[in-house]
Amino acid sequence: MSLQSKNVRSSSNSYNYGKLNSALSMATLNPQVIKAEYAVRGELAIRADILRKKLQSGEKLPFKNIISCNIGNPFVVGKKAITFPRQVISCIENPDLLNIKEIPEEARHRAAQVFKHFPAGLGAYTHSQGLDFVREHIAEYIKNRDDGIPAHPDKIFITTGASSAVTTILNMIIAKPNVGIMIPFPQYPLYTAEIALKNGRVVPYYLKESSRWSLDLEELNESYTVASKSGVDIKAIVVINPGNPTGSVLTAQQMRDVIEFCEQNNILLIADEVYQFNTYNPEKSFISFKKVASEMKSSVQLISLNSISKGFMGECGHRAGYMELYHIPDDVKAQFYKMASIQLCPNTVGQVILDIMCHPPESPECRKQWDHERDTELTNLKNKSQRLLNCINSLPGLESQPADGAMYLFPSIHLPLKALEAAKSFRVNGKHVSPDMFWSLQLLEQTGIAVVPGSGFGQVPGTHHFRTTFLPEAEQMDEMIERLTKFQNDFMNKYQ
Amino acid sequence: MSLQSKNVRSSSNSYNYGKLNSALSMATLNPQVIKAEYAVRGELAIRADILRKKLQSGEKLPFKNIISCNIGNPFVVGKKAITFPRQVISCIENPDLLNIKEIPEEARHRAAQVFKHFPAGLGAYTHSQGLDFVREHIAEYIKNRDDGIPAHPDKIFITTGASSAVTTILNMIIAKPNVGIMIPFPQYPLYTAEIALKNGRVVPYYLKESSRWSLDLEELNESYTVASKSGVDIKAIVVINPGNPTGSVLTAQQMRDVIEFCEQNNILLIADEVYQFNTYNPEKSFISFKKVASEMKSSVQLISLNSISKGFMGECGHRAGYMELYHIPDDVKAQFYKMASIQLCPNTVGQVILDIMCHPPESPECRKQWDHERDTELTNLKNKSQRLLNCINSLPGLESQPADGAMYLFPSIHLPLKALEAAKSFRVNGKHVSPDMFWSLQLLEQTGIAVVPGSGFGQVPGTHHFRTTFLPEAEQMDEMIERLTKFQNDFMNKYQ
Repeated sequence: MSLQSKNVRSSSNSYNYGKLNSALSMATLNPQVIKAEYAVRGELAIRADILRKKLQSGEKLPFKNIISCNIGNPFVVGKKAITFPRQVISCIENPDLLNIKEIPEEARHRAAQVFKHFPAGLGAYTHSQGLDFVREHIAEYIKNRDDGIPAHPDKIFITTGASSAVTTILNMIIAKPNVGIMIPFPQYPLYTAEIALKNGRVVPYYLKESSRWSLDLEELNESYTVASKSGVDIKAIVVINPGNPTGSVLTAQQMRDVIEFCEQNNILLIADEVYQFNTYNPEKSFISFKKVASEMKSSVQLISLNSISKGFMGECGHRAGYMELYHIPDDVKAQFYKMASIQLCPNTVGQVILDIMCHPPESPECRKQWDHERDTELTNLKNKSQRLLNCINSLPGLESQPADGAMYLFPSIHLPLKALEAAKSFRVNGKHVSPDMFWSLQLLEQTGIAVVPGSGFGQVPGTHHFRTTFLPEAEQMDEMIERLTKFQNDFMNKYQ
Repeated sequence: MSLQSKNVRSSSNSYNYGKLNSALSMATLNPQVIKAEYAVRGELAIRADILRKKLQSGEKLPFKNIISCNIGNPFVVGKKAITFPRQVISCIENPDLLNIKEIPEEARHRAAQVFKHFPAGLGAYTHSQGLDFVREHIAEYIKNRDDGIPAHPDKIFITTGASSAVTTILNMIIAKPNVGIMIPFPQYPLYTAEIALKNGRVVPYYLKESSRWSLDLEELNESYTVASKSGVDIKAIVVINPGNPTGSVLTAQQMRDVIEFCEQNNILLIADEVYQFNTYNPEKSFISFKKVASEMKSSVQLISLNSISKGFMGECGHRAGYMELYHIPDDVKAQFYKMASIQLCPNTVGQVILDIMCHPPESPECRKQWDHERDTELTNLKNKSQRLLNCINSLPGLESQPADGAMYLFPSIHLPLKALEAAKSFRVNGKHVSPDMFWSLQLLEQTGIAVVPGSGFGQVPGTHHFRTTFLPEAEQMDEMIERLTKFQNDFMNKYQ
């Protein structure tokens, strides 16, 4: 019994308020909440936290630190901030710094510009869609990215990261329990969690592992048809491009297929494009769905997501992103505004960082540093993905497709029969776990490397995977490769 | 027809993709979304924005600026930031500043402490409940506030402002459409909006205007009984103390009554205590529900909310707050954790500002400034509330209770018959509006003062009110009083 429930009992004993109060208990809780699962910060992440605290308190474990590869959180594995936005923010938070020489002139000037547009400063709520001037810069960024196809500040909503955008969109769409949303499997588990919360239906379509996790039109059609026949009313499809957890990048032809598929079936296209800066294969550069749709003169309804948490900034903690609405009628847009207004506004600091991501510095001094930091970050990501891929593909029992984009590898684990049997009799808190959770937990306990079992993302039944970021910097990456190599060799020796 | 829908039509005409795409239209949208209303940023705020833009573009209006009293957003009406947290944040965002003399030593030391606890810095996701060391400081703050009653960091969840805490709590509770939540009328409209979104039932209990908007046990019981008899399954009650929009502050006896009421009916107590620093009547200081419950040795289930947006900091734009769970079982707490984890974490900057709110500076230099700024802010608020109250109560047709706390007055508007008739034939976008919206819109159009009509908060049928903040600083408050006085005298002359 926990301390908390002890308190409850003893206090209800000592006073005659009758029964143990249980207004909020597992029995009364919204069952959709209980149903929702979010693997990225699930069981394994919680266990990693416990081990981290043990290490901090001086306990001896088989490793000296946790290497957090379970989540795309670059700063915890060594990333340094892009300098310019931080300089600007420091001046806006603390206007005493607007005149000090230690901060480059352009950063101070940029801070002064923010005050010009937003005199109340970072302590004030903004427009619920986000600051006007930031949305103007976002629109310019989108226009340049899409070779001149116009973008309108008015169609852009700044959000508390892409996650809150997804929550809002799904809230709008899921009107009844038979509403289905098509989701790639494997997927980022935010989607299945939020659909469960809203009591909608997940309609998976499987990506083809053997061809770099590519998206296949036949599979889309089949998945749609089967679900529709069973009474699911499919309203939207999510496409994650570049792919999380797969690292795949769509071709223009695949994108046209998806758009036509949406038109034929009259469904909304939710384009999760948060990794748009993260591509590593010169033959597969990022193209936005909006650009393709616009070039096709398609009338598809599209909402595209972006974020400051990924790309080269990796500013996860600052919680900002945006969504762009395309072909969404004004009356529906007004409902998006209302939903945003109930939560007042996204945080101001994140908005300014987003502003700078879309509108980088221009003075030679600051721009040179910006370009250098951005290019170094993206080159590093590419190299690290290659190093980790080579390591994994050299190990027995593991096999990974390369990452053309994003921040993850999603390798197969070929578990020997003996390992599958061991997994069957393995328990965590008295409960069975999936074979890839069994593997991932052993990896964590023996090496301190935290990854996420593939079962949290959706995978073809009978296959096993794990998702790992390739974010750890230099030394941590060396460590990771060394620990993973030893672990997997030992594991296969033990179970083969 | 809007430009947007024109585009859609012309593109669907020029290409044979068949019908106009309408996956997301008012007809298919989640009806709960359409039903939700949020007055604080509703029709009137949108109109105020339009007028503000007209002024910016040089258009002549009967006033030179908008005075935003529709929302508790102090920085837009002249508030200055409390200095210390901004200094600390500037150093954490930009560690180059950790050694410059322009920032006081304690602020730089405090920034260094943050790095010690959180080496990855502000760019990283934190624990989904919020940073450990911040939750420790919050727990210490609560313990001191409650005269030594212990608080546990483990029971505290840092949130993206109190609004997101409310969203999460209601998500947990509203399992079926017959689940009811008791809400004070008048209320902060976040509650009715979120209950509508989640398809629950609002069960209003009316506060007594004539006795400073006090809470009445008989009214609670009656409201509970009537709703229960009609099949509503009441699971929780919201109490806002100090009150928004009423400014009332509960006595210890009233709080004991509420707690016993919750116990008798086995319902959760949601204590919205975001104005806990904002009390102005020495005879009615703030007492927390947790303290009262603990002293009663009650087993009531309680969730208390706090925020950096209110109090003396007013740091709305930084979006941070917390909730403390009391007598909530660990398995339910784990569900709160899961819900938090799906949105990853609250923003880091807000967390650090919250940290400082709960753990102020200690060096003589910084503490003196802190105390001075805090006391000045709170004294100003008290004085401004008094000035505005005196003005309102001197005007024909208006009458307001004093504010013992919070940031608002909620005056009655006694509308003459002729005004009620004029309101009946008045239209906004072809739609009827409530008589207090009629009054508030005229106030806005003639004076630039933005308030919120009482109908957005809930009021006894047949009565009319408006909510105004008393936040405008010095000159703006003078202006406001002058404009309001002239407006109301003219209004009454016209309609009486």
